[in-house]
Amino acid sequence: MTELALSMADAVRPLIAQHFRKRLTIETKDDASPVTIADREAEALMRAMIADAFPDHGIRGEEFGLHQADAEWVWVLDPIDGTKSFISGSLAFGTQIALLYRGRPVLGLIDQPITGERWLGRTGLPTLFGTQPIRCSSVENLADAVLYTSARDHFDGTQAPRYDRLACSTRFNRSSHDCYAAGLLALGLVDILAEANVYDYDILPQAPIILGAGGIITDWAGLPLPDGRVFDTVLISANAVLHRAALAALKID
Amino acid sequence: MTELALSMADAVRPLIAQHFRKRLTIETKDDASPVTIADREAEALMRAMIADAFPDHGIRGEEFGLHQADAEWVWVLDPIDGTKSFISGSLAFGTQIALLYRGRPVLGLIDQPITGERWLGRTGLPTLFGTQPIRCSSVENLADAVLYTSARDHFDGTQAPRYDRLACSTRFNRSSHDCYAAGLLALGLVDILAEANVYDYDILPQAPIILGAGGIITDWAGLPLPDGRVFDTVLISANAVLHRAALAALKID
Repeated sequence: MTELALSMADAVRPLIAQHFRKRLTIETKDDASPVTIADREAEALMRAMIADAFPDHGIRGEEFGLHQADAEWVWVLDPIDGTKSFISGSLAFGTQIALLYRGRPVLGLIDQPITGERWLGRTGLPTLFGTQPIRCSSVENLADAVLYTSARDHFDGTQAPRYDRLACSTRFNRSSHDCYAAGLLALGLVDILAEANVYDYDILPQAPIILGAGGIITDWAGLPLPDGRVFDTVLISANAVLHRAALAALKID
Repeated sequence: MTELALSMADAVRPLIAQHFRKRLTIETKDDASPVTIADREAEALMRAMIADAFPDHGIRGEEFGLHQADAEWVWVLDPIDGTKSFISGSLAFGTQIALLYRGRPVLGLIDQPITGERWLGRTGLPTLFGTQPIRCSSVENLADAVLYTSARDHFDGTQAPRYDRLACSTRFNRSSHDCYAAGLLALGLVDILAEANVYDYDILPQAPIILGAGGIITDWAGLPLPDGRVFDTVLISANAVLHRAALAALKID
Protein backbone atom coordinates (compact mmCIF):
# COMPACT_ATOMS: atom_id res chain seq x y z
CA MET A 1 0.00 0.00 0.00
CA THR A 2 3.10 2.22 0.32
CA GLU A 3 3.41 1.81 -3.43
CA LEU A 4 -0.11 3.18 -3.97
CA ALA A 5 0.57 6.17 -1.69
CA LEU A 6 3.74 7.00 -3.64
CA SER A 7 1.96 6.48 -6.99
CA MET A 8 -0.87 8.82 -5.96
CA ALA A 9 1.59 11.54 -4.93
CA ASP A 10 3.44 11.09 -8.24
CA ALA A 11 0.18 11.28 -10.20
CA VAL A 12 -1.14 14.49 -8.64
CA ARG A 13 2.16 16.40 -8.90
CA PRO A 14 1.79 17.52 -12.56
CA LEU A 15 -1.91 18.12 -12.06
CA ILE A 16 -1.29 20.53 -9.16
CA ALA A 17 1.81 22.05 -10.78
CA GLN A 18 -0.11 23.03 -13.92
CA HIS A 19 -2.42 25.22 -11.81
CA PHE A 20 0.33 26.74 -9.60
CA ARG A 21 0.64 30.53 -9.97
CA LYS A 22 -2.08 30.55 -12.63
CA ARG A 23 -5.31 32.55 -12.42
CA LEU A 24 -7.79 30.20 -10.75
CA THR A 25 -11.42 30.50 -9.80
CA ILE A 26 -11.45 30.33 -6.03
CA GLU A 27 -14.59 29.19 -4.24
CA THR A 28 -15.21 29.51 -0.54
CA LYS A 29 -16.45 26.45 1.32
CA ASP A 30 -18.93 26.34 4.21
CA ASP A 31 -16.07 26.46 6.73
CA ALA A 32 -14.74 29.63 4.97
CA SER A 33 -11.69 27.81 3.56
CA PRO A 34 -10.88 28.29 -0.12
CA VAL A 35 -10.93 25.54 -2.74
CA THR A 36 -9.83 25.45 -6.40
CA ILE A 37 -10.12 23.12 -9.37
CA ALA A 38 -6.61 21.87 -8.47
CA ASP A 39 -7.82 20.56 -5.07
CA ARG A 40 -10.83 18.84 -6.67
CA GLU A 41 -9.01 17.28 -9.66
CA ALA A 42 -6.21 15.98 -7.45
CA GLU A 43 -8.58 14.36 -4.96
CA ALA A 44 -10.75 12.86 -7.71
CA LEU A 45 -7.66 11.27 -9.29
CA MET A 46 -6.48 9.79 -5.98
CA ARG A 47 -9.96 8.42 -5.21
CA ALA A 48 -10.08 6.71 -8.60
CA MET A 49 -6.63 5.16 -8.03
CA ILE A 50 -7.68 3.80 -4.61
CA ALA A 51 -10.97 2.41 -5.96
CA ASP A 52 -9.04 0.70 -8.73
CA ALA A 53 -6.35 -0.85 -6.52
CA PHE A 54 -8.33 -1.58 -3.35
CA PRO A 55 -12.08 -1.36 -4.03
CA ASP A 56 -12.93 -2.41 -0.45
CA HIS A 57 -10.91 0.41 1.17
CA GLY A 58 -12.66 3.44 2.65
CA ILE A 59 -11.82 7.00 1.63
CA ARG A 60 -12.10 10.24 3.57
CA GLY A 61 -11.13 13.32 1.53
CA GLU A 62 -11.19 17.04 2.23
CA GLU A 63 -13.19 17.83 -0.91
CA PHE A 64 -15.48 14.83 -1.54
CA GLY A 65 -16.26 13.45 1.94
CA LEU A 66 -16.47 9.90 3.19
CA HIS A 67 -16.78 6.63 1.23
CA GLN A 68 -17.11 3.21 2.94
CA ALA A 69 -16.56 4.62 6.44
CA ASP A 70 -16.66 1.19 8.07
CA ALA A 71 -13.82 -0.29 6.01
CA GLU A 72 -10.86 -1.73 7.92
CA TRP A 73 -8.47 0.35 5.81
CA VAL A 74 -9.35 4.01 5.20
CA TRP A 75 -7.36 6.52 3.14
CA VAL A 76 -7.43 10.12 4.35
CA LEU A 77 -6.68 12.64 1.58
CA ASP A 78 -5.90 16.36 1.59
CA PRO A 79 -4.97 17.14 -2.02
CA ILE A 80 -3.65 20.63 -1.18
CA ASP A 81 -3.00 21.32 2.50
CA GLY A 82 -2.24 25.03 2.57
CA THR A 83 -4.61 26.16 -0.18
CA LYS A 84 -4.04 29.79 0.90
CA SER A 85 -0.31 29.36 0.25
CA PHE A 86 -1.03 27.62 -3.08
CA ILE A 87 -3.39 30.40 -4.21
CA SER A 88 -0.90 33.13 -3.32
CA GLY A 89 2.10 31.44 -4.94
CA SER A 90 3.95 30.35 -1.78
CA LEU A 91 5.66 26.94 -1.71
CA ALA A 92 4.46 26.36 1.88
CA PHE A 93 1.82 23.76 0.93
CA GLY A 94 1.66 20.06 0.16
CA THR A 95 -0.39 17.03 -0.73
CA GLN A 96 -1.21 14.94 2.34
CA ILE A 97 -2.13 11.24 2.34
CA ALA A 98 -2.75 8.98 5.34
CA LEU A 99 -3.72 5.33 5.54
CA LEU A 100 -5.66 4.29 8.65
CA TYR A 101 -5.94 0.71 9.86
CA ARG A 102 -9.00 0.36 12.13
CA GLY A 103 -8.94 4.11 12.72
CA ARG A 104 -5.21 4.50 13.47
CA PRO A 105 -2.81 6.10 10.98
CA VAL A 106 -0.14 3.59 9.91
CA LEU A 107 1.19 5.51 6.89
CA GLY A 108 1.56 9.23 6.28
CA LEU A 109 2.89 11.11 3.26
CA ILE A 110 3.52 14.82 2.63
CA ASP A 111 4.50 15.79 -0.92
CA GLN A 112 5.49 19.25 -2.19
CA PRO A 113 4.54 19.04 -5.88
CA ILE A 114 6.68 21.96 -7.07
CA THR A 115 9.97 21.38 -5.23
CA GLY A 116 9.66 17.59 -5.34
CA GLU A 117 10.22 17.24 -1.59
CA ARG A 118 8.52 14.20 -0.08
CA TRP A 119 8.16 12.89 3.48
CA LEU A 120 7.02 9.29 4.16
CA GLY A 121 6.22 7.87 7.60
CA ARG A 122 5.17 4.28 8.38
CA THR A 123 4.52 2.71 11.78
CA GLY A 124 7.67 1.06 13.10
CA LEU A 125 9.94 2.46 10.37
CA PRO A 126 12.18 5.55 10.33
CA THR A 127 10.63 8.51 8.52
CA LEU A 128 12.09 9.16 5.08
CA PHE A 129 12.71 12.53 3.37
CA GLY A 130 13.12 11.36 -0.21
CA THR A 131 15.23 8.26 0.47
CA GLN A 132 17.00 9.71 3.55
CA PRO A 133 16.01 8.71 7.12
CA ILE A 134 15.40 11.85 9.21
CA ARG A 135 15.08 12.68 12.88
CA CYS A 136 13.46 15.44 14.95
CA SER A 137 15.69 17.82 16.89
CA SER A 138 17.04 17.25 20.39
CA VAL A 139 16.18 20.81 21.49
CA GLU A 140 14.83 20.47 25.04
CA ASN A 141 14.45 24.08 26.23
CA LEU A 142 11.59 26.30 25.10
CA ALA A 143 14.00 29.24 24.91
CA ASP A 144 15.93 27.41 22.14
CA ALA A 145 12.85 26.12 20.33
CA VAL A 146 11.34 27.31 17.03
CA LEU A 147 7.51 27.28 17.10
CA TYR A 148 5.23 27.21 14.06
CA THR A 149 1.45 27.41 13.73
CA SER A 150 -0.71 27.49 10.60
CA ALA A 151 -2.72 30.59 11.54
CA ARG A 152 -3.01 32.24 14.92
CA ASP A 153 -6.32 33.78 13.86
CA HIS A 154 -7.89 30.29 13.68
CA PHE A 155 -7.66 30.15 17.48
CA ASP A 156 -10.69 30.99 19.58
CA GLY A 157 -11.56 31.52 23.24
CA THR A 158 -8.57 30.85 25.46
CA GLN A 159 -6.54 29.28 22.63
CA ALA A 160 -4.99 32.56 21.45
CA PRO A 161 -3.67 33.69 24.86
CA ARG A 162 -2.43 30.15 25.59
CA TYR A 163 -0.59 30.09 22.24
CA ASP A 164 0.83 33.55 22.89
CA ARG A 165 2.21 32.44 26.25
CA LEU A 166 3.92 29.48 24.58
CA ALA A 167 5.17 31.73 21.75
CA CYS A 168 6.71 34.21 24.21
CA SER A 169 8.72 31.38 25.79
CA THR A 170 10.27 30.20 22.51
CA ARG A 171 13.23 31.49 20.49
CA PHE A 172 10.82 32.67 17.79
CA ASN A 173 7.53 31.71 16.19
CA ARG A 174 6.38 31.64 12.55
CA SER A 175 3.13 30.83 10.78
CA SER A 176 1.41 30.20 7.41
CA HIS A 177 3.28 27.00 6.51
CA ASP A 178 0.58 24.35 7.13
CA CYS A 179 1.83 20.76 6.52
CA TYR A 180 5.21 22.07 5.35
CA ALA A 181 5.95 23.01 8.97
CA ALA A 182 5.34 19.38 10.04
CA GLY A 183 7.86 18.32 7.39
CA LEU A 184 10.38 20.83 8.76
CA LEU A 185 9.76 19.50 12.27
CA ALA A 186 10.51 15.94 11.13
CA LEU A 187 13.72 17.32 9.55
CA GLY A 188 14.82 18.69 12.94
CA LEU A 189 14.52 22.35 11.83
CA VAL A 190 11.27 23.29 13.62
CA ASP A 191 10.82 22.12 17.21
CA ILE A 192 7.15 22.69 18.11
CA LEU A 193 3.96 22.89 16.07
CA ALA A 194 0.75 24.09 17.76
CA GLU A 195 -2.56 23.90 15.91
CA ALA A 196 -6.21 24.39 16.88
CA ASN A 197 -9.56 23.67 15.24
CA VAL A 198 -8.17 21.43 12.51
CA TYR A 199 -9.56 18.42 10.69
CA ASP A 200 -8.44 14.78 10.57
CA TYR A 201 -7.11 15.25 7.00
CA ASP A 202 -4.93 18.15 8.19
CA ILE A 203 -3.22 16.17 10.94
CA LEU A 204 -3.48 12.36 10.54
CA PRO A 205 -1.04 12.23 7.57
CA GLN A 206 1.52 13.98 9.79
CA ALA A 207 1.29 11.49 12.68
CA PRO A 208 3.37 8.60 11.24
CA ILE A 209 5.89 11.12 9.85
CA ILE A 210 6.36 12.77 13.24
CA LEU A 211 6.38 9.55 15.26
CA GLY A 212 8.82 7.86 12.86
CA ALA A 213 11.21 10.80 13.30
CA GLY A 214 11.09 10.57 17.10
CA GLY A 215 8.50 13.29 17.73
CA ILE A 216 5.32 13.37 19.80
CA ILE A 217 1.69 14.35 19.09
CA THR A 218 -1.02 15.00 21.66
CA ASP A 219 -3.67 17.63 22.29
CA TRP A 220 -2.81 20.73 24.35
CA ALA A 221 -3.64 18.82 27.56
CA GLY A 222 -1.14 16.08 26.74
CA LEU A 223 -3.82 13.51 25.85
CA PRO A 224 -3.82 11.34 22.72
CA LEU A 225 -5.79 12.80 19.83
CA PRO A 226 -9.40 11.62 20.09
CA ASP A 227 -11.19 9.60 17.42
CA GLY A 228 -13.24 11.83 15.19
CA ARG A 229 -12.87 14.32 12.41
CA VAL A 230 -12.15 17.59 14.20
CA PHE A 231 -9.36 18.22 16.68
CA ASP A 232 -9.79 21.20 19.00
CA THR A 233 -6.07 21.40 19.77
CA VAL A 234 -2.94 19.61 18.53
CA LEU A 235 0.60 19.89 19.92
CA ILE A 236 3.55 18.33 18.09
CA SER A 237 7.03 18.42 19.61
CA ALA A 238 10.45 17.14 18.62
CA ASN A 239 10.92 15.12 21.83
CA ALA A 240 9.33 14.28 25.18
CA VAL A 241 11.28 16.78 27.31
CA LEU A 242 10.36 19.70 25.05
CA HIS A 243 6.77 18.45 24.84
CA ARG A 244 6.38 18.59 28.64
CA ALA A 245 7.73 22.15 28.69
CA ALA A 246 5.35 23.21 25.91
CA LEU A 247 2.37 21.62 27.68
CA ALA A 248 3.24 23.54 30.86
CA ALA A 249 3.28 26.84 28.92
CA LEU A 250 -0.10 26.01 27.32
CA LYS A 251 -1.72 25.03 30.62
CA ILE A 252 -4.88 26.83 31.71
CA ASP A 253 -4.24 28.40 35.15
CA MET B 1 25.77 47.96 -12.62
CA THR B 2 22.91 45.52 -13.30
CA GLU B 3 25.64 43.07 -14.22
CA LEU B 4 27.30 43.46 -10.82
CA ALA B 5 23.96 42.96 -9.01
CA LEU B 6 23.33 39.74 -10.95
CA SER B 7 26.92 38.55 -10.40
CA MET B 8 26.62 39.15 -6.66
CA ALA B 9 23.38 37.18 -6.46
CA ASP B 10 24.99 34.35 -8.48
CA ALA B 11 28.05 34.37 -6.23
CA VAL B 12 26.21 34.13 -2.90
CA ARG B 13 23.79 31.38 -4.01
CA PRO B 14 26.13 28.39 -3.41
CA LEU B 15 27.47 30.01 -0.27
CA ILE B 16 23.99 30.31 1.25
CA ALA B 17 22.83 26.95 -0.15
CA GLN B 18 25.69 25.09 1.55
CA HIS B 19 24.41 26.28 4.95
CA PHE B 20 20.70 25.68 4.25
CA ARG B 21 19.13 23.08 6.59
CA LYS B 22 22.48 22.45 8.24
CA ARG B 23 23.16 22.85 11.96
CA LEU B 24 24.31 26.46 12.35
CA THR B 25 25.40 28.53 15.30
CA ILE B 26 22.76 31.22 15.62
CA GLU B 27 23.63 34.49 17.31
CA THR B 28 21.14 37.09 18.42
CA LYS B 29 21.81 40.71 17.43
CA ASP B 30 21.09 43.83 19.49
CA ASP B 31 17.70 44.19 17.79
CA ALA B 32 16.87 40.57 18.78
CA SER B 33 17.07 39.34 15.17
CA PRO B 34 19.10 36.17 14.49
CA VAL B 35 22.25 36.02 12.36
CA THR B 36 24.34 33.10 11.09
CA ILE B 37 27.67 32.55 9.37
CA ALA B 38 25.71 32.35 6.08
CA ASP B 39 24.48 35.97 6.45
CA ARG B 40 28.00 37.20 7.28
CA GLU B 41 29.87 35.27 4.59
CA ALA B 42 27.36 36.30 1.90
CA GLU B 43 27.55 39.99 2.81
CA ALA B 44 31.35 39.95 3.04
CA LEU B 45 31.56 38.43 -0.45
CA MET B 46 29.19 41.03 -1.94
CA ARG B 47 31.10 43.88 -0.27
CA ALA B 48 34.36 42.62 -1.73
CA MET B 49 32.82 42.40 -5.20
CA ILE B 50 31.50 45.99 -4.99
CA ALA B 51 34.83 47.33 -3.70
CA ASP B 52 36.58 45.58 -6.56
CA ALA B 53 34.23 46.81 -9.32
CA PHE B 54 33.32 50.29 -8.02
CA PRO B 55 35.70 51.34 -5.24
CA ASP B 56 34.05 54.76 -4.91
CA HIS B 57 30.55 53.34 -4.28
CA GLY B 58 29.05 53.35 -0.80
CA ILE B 59 27.77 50.18 0.90
CA ARG B 60 25.08 49.76 3.55
CA GLY B 61 24.65 46.15 4.69
CA GLU B 62 22.55 44.48 7.36
CA GLU B 63 25.53 42.75 8.97
CA PHE B 64 28.54 45.08 8.51
CA GLY B 65 27.06 48.57 8.54
CA LEU B 66 27.83 51.61 6.42
CA HIS B 67 30.86 52.31 4.20
CA GLN B 68 31.31 55.63 2.30
CA ALA B 69 27.87 56.94 3.26
CA ASP B 70 28.28 60.10 1.19
CA ALA B 71 28.88 58.32 -2.12
CA GLU B 72 26.59 59.17 -5.02
CA TRP B 73 25.91 55.45 -5.57
CA VAL B 74 25.21 53.30 -2.51
CA TRP B 75 24.52 49.54 -2.48
CA VAL B 76 22.08 48.29 0.17
CA LEU B 77 22.56 44.60 1.02
CA ASP B 78 20.51 42.10 2.97
CA PRO B 79 22.27 38.77 2.42
CA ILE B 80 19.43 36.74 3.95
CA ASP B 81 16.12 38.55 4.36
CA GLY B 82 14.01 36.11 6.36
CA THR B 83 16.76 34.63 8.52
CA LYS B 84 14.07 32.99 10.70
CA SER B 85 12.75 31.14 7.63
CA PHE B 86 16.30 30.22 6.60
CA ILE B 87 17.15 28.86 10.06
CA SER B 88 13.98 26.78 10.23
CA GLY B 89 14.29 25.34 6.71
CA SER B 90 11.52 27.30 4.98
CA LEU B 91 12.07 28.58 1.44
CA ALA B 92 10.38 31.90 2.31
CA PHE B 93 13.61 33.94 2.37
CA GLY B 94 15.88 35.63 -0.14
CA THR B 95 18.96 37.70 -0.82
CA GLN B 96 18.10 41.37 -1.29
CA ILE B 97 20.22 43.93 -3.14
CA ALA B 98 19.38 47.58 -3.89
CA LEU B 99 21.36 50.27 -5.65
CA LEU B 100 20.62 53.85 -4.58
CA TYR B 101 21.50 56.90 -6.67
CA ARG B 102 21.62 59.99 -4.45
CA GLY B 103 19.50 58.18 -1.87
CA ARG B 104 16.82 56.84 -4.23
CA PRO B 105 16.61 53.14 -5.15
CA VAL B 106 17.08 52.68 -8.92
CA LEU B 107 17.71 48.93 -8.93
CA GLY B 108 16.31 46.16 -6.72
CA LEU B 109 16.96 42.43 -6.76
CA ILE B 110 15.44 39.56 -4.77
CA ASP B 111 17.04 36.13 -5.24
CA GLN B 112 15.91 32.82 -3.74
CA PRO B 113 19.18 30.86 -3.59
CA ILE B 114 17.61 27.39 -3.30
CA THR B 115 14.78 27.52 -5.87
CA GLY B 116 16.70 29.81 -8.24
CA GLU B 117 13.85 32.30 -8.46
CA ARG B 118 15.00 35.87 -9.13
CA TRP B 119 13.20 39.21 -9.34
CA LEU B 120 14.91 42.28 -10.89
CA GLY B 121 13.49 45.80 -10.89
CA ARG B 122 15.07 48.89 -12.47
CA THR B 123 13.67 52.40 -12.68
CA GLY B 124 11.77 52.87 -15.92
CA LEU B 125 11.91 49.19 -16.94
CA PRO B 126 9.39 46.37 -16.45
CA THR B 127 10.20 44.10 -13.52
CA LEU B 128 11.62 40.73 -14.53
CA PHE B 129 11.04 37.34 -12.88
CA GLY B 130 13.91 35.41 -14.38
CA THR B 131 13.67 36.75 -17.95
CA GLN B 132 9.88 37.20 -17.88
CA PRO B 133 8.27 40.66 -17.43
CA ILE B 134 5.70 40.53 -14.62
CA ARG B 135 2.84 42.68 -13.40
CA CYS B 136 0.98 43.21 -10.12
CA SER B 137 -2.67 42.16 -9.89
CA SER B 138 -5.65 44.29 -10.86
CA VAL B 139 -7.56 43.34 -7.68
CA GLU B 140 -9.27 46.55 -6.52
CA ASN B 141 -11.53 45.41 -3.66
CA LEU B 142 -10.17 44.61 -0.21
CA ALA B 143 -12.62 41.70 0.02
CA ASP B 144 -10.83 40.04 -2.94
CA ALA B 145 -7.31 40.91 -1.79
CA VAL B 146 -4.65 38.65 -0.27
CA LEU B 147 -2.66 40.38 2.48
CA TYR B 148 0.79 39.36 3.74
CA THR B 149 2.93 40.69 6.58
CA SER B 150 6.30 39.48 7.83
CA ALA B 151 5.33 39.20 11.50
CA ARG B 152 2.30 40.64 13.24
CA ASP B 153 4.17 40.47 16.56
CA HIS B 154 6.65 43.09 15.30
CA PHE B 155 3.84 45.65 15.45
CA ASP B 156 3.56 47.94 18.46
CA GLY B 157 1.14 50.51 19.87
CA THR B 158 -1.74 51.11 17.50
CA GLN B 159 -0.08 49.18 14.65
CA ALA B 160 -1.51 45.78 15.63
CA PRO B 161 -5.17 46.87 15.81
CA ARG B 162 -4.78 48.89 12.60
CA TYR B 163 -3.31 45.84 10.85
CA ASP B 164 -6.08 43.62 12.26
CA ARG B 165 -8.73 45.95 10.88
CA LEU B 166 -7.13 45.78 7.45
CA ALA B 167 -6.74 41.99 7.74
CA CYS B 168 -10.44 41.55 8.60
CA SER B 169 -11.39 43.39 5.39
CA THR B 170 -9.32 41.15 3.10
CA ARG B 171 -10.01 37.71 1.62
CA PHE B 172 -7.30 36.24 3.85
CA ASN B 173 -3.98 37.17 5.38
CA ARG B 174 -0.72 35.25 5.76
CA SER B 175 2.66 35.94 7.36
CA SER B 176 6.28 34.79 7.79
CA HIS B 177 7.37 35.21 4.15
CA ASP B 178 9.53 38.37 4.36
CA CYS B 179 10.88 39.48 0.94
CA TYR B 180 9.37 36.42 -0.74
CA ALA B 181 5.94 38.03 -0.22
CA ALA B 182 7.09 41.12 -2.14
CA GLY B 183 8.13 38.84 -4.97
CA LEU B 184 4.70 37.19 -4.94
CA LEU B 185 3.08 40.65 -4.99
CA ALA B 186 5.08 41.60 -8.09
CA LEU B 187 3.90 38.31 -9.66
CA GLY B 188 0.26 39.33 -9.12
CA LEU B 189 -0.40 36.58 -6.55
CA VAL B 190 -0.38 38.67 -3.36
CA ASP B 191 -2.21 42.02 -3.41
CA ILE B 192 -1.17 43.92 -0.26
CA LEU B 193 1.91 43.82 1.95
CA ALA B 194 1.87 45.68 5.28
CA GLU B 195 5.03 45.99 7.35
CA ALA B 196 6.06 47.96 10.42
CA ASN B 197 9.34 48.77 12.16
CA VAL B 198 11.56 47.60 9.32
CA TYR B 199 14.96 48.71 8.06
CA ASP B 200 16.06 50.25 4.77
CA TYR B 201 17.74 46.98 3.71
CA ASP B 202 14.42 45.13 4.26
CA ILE B 203 12.41 47.41 1.98
CA LEU B 204 14.53 49.46 -0.46
CA PRO B 205 15.44 46.46 -2.67
CA GLN B 206 11.70 45.81 -3.07
CA ALA B 207 10.85 49.33 -4.26
CA PRO B 208 12.05 49.11 -7.92
CA ILE B 209 10.60 45.58 -8.17
CA ILE B 210 7.17 46.71 -6.99
CA LEU B 211 7.13 49.97 -8.97
CA GLY B 212 8.31 48.26 -12.18
CA ALA B 213 5.42 45.79 -11.85
CA GLY B 214 2.84 48.56 -11.48
CA GLY B 215 2.55 48.54 -7.68
CA ILE B 216 2.72 51.31 -5.08
CA ILE B 217 4.73 51.85 -1.87
CA THR B 218 4.02 54.43 0.83
CA ASP B 219 3.81 54.49 4.60
CA TRP B 220 0.49 53.71 6.33
CA ALA B 221 -0.55 57.38 6.00
CA GLY B 222 -0.07 57.33 2.23
CA LEU B 223 3.14 59.39 2.33
CA PRO B 224 6.36 58.51 0.48
CA LEU B 225 8.85 56.55 2.58
CA PRO B 226 11.10 59.01 4.40
CA ASP B 227 14.87 59.16 4.01
CA GLY B 228 16.60 57.25 6.77
CA ARG B 229 17.31 53.73 7.87
CA VAL B 230 14.17 52.75 9.78
CA PHE B 231 10.62 52.84 8.48
CA ASP B 232 7.85 52.85 11.09
CA THR B 233 5.23 51.63 8.61
CA VAL B 234 5.25 50.44 4.99
CA LEU B 235 2.25 49.67 2.78
CA ILE B 236 2.70 48.03 -0.63
CA SER B 237 -0.31 47.48 -2.91
CA ALA B 238 -0.83 46.04 -6.38
CA ASN B 239 -2.50 49.21 -7.73
CA ALA B 240 -3.71 52.68 -6.75
CA VAL B 241 -7.39 51.82 -6.22
CA LEU B 242 -6.57 48.98 -3.83
CA HIS B 243 -3.95 51.15 -2.10
CA ARG B 244 -6.54 53.81 -1.28
CA ALA B 245 -8.88 51.19 0.16
CA ALA B 246 -6.08 49.72 2.28
CA LEU B 247 -5.07 53.17 3.55
CA ALA B 248 -8.69 53.82 4.60
CA ALA B 249 -8.76 50.58 6.60
CA LEU B 250 -5.44 51.46 8.29
CA LYS B 251 -6.52 55.01 9.19
CA ILE B 252 -6.44 56.10 12.82
CA ASP B 253 -9.93 57.23 13.82
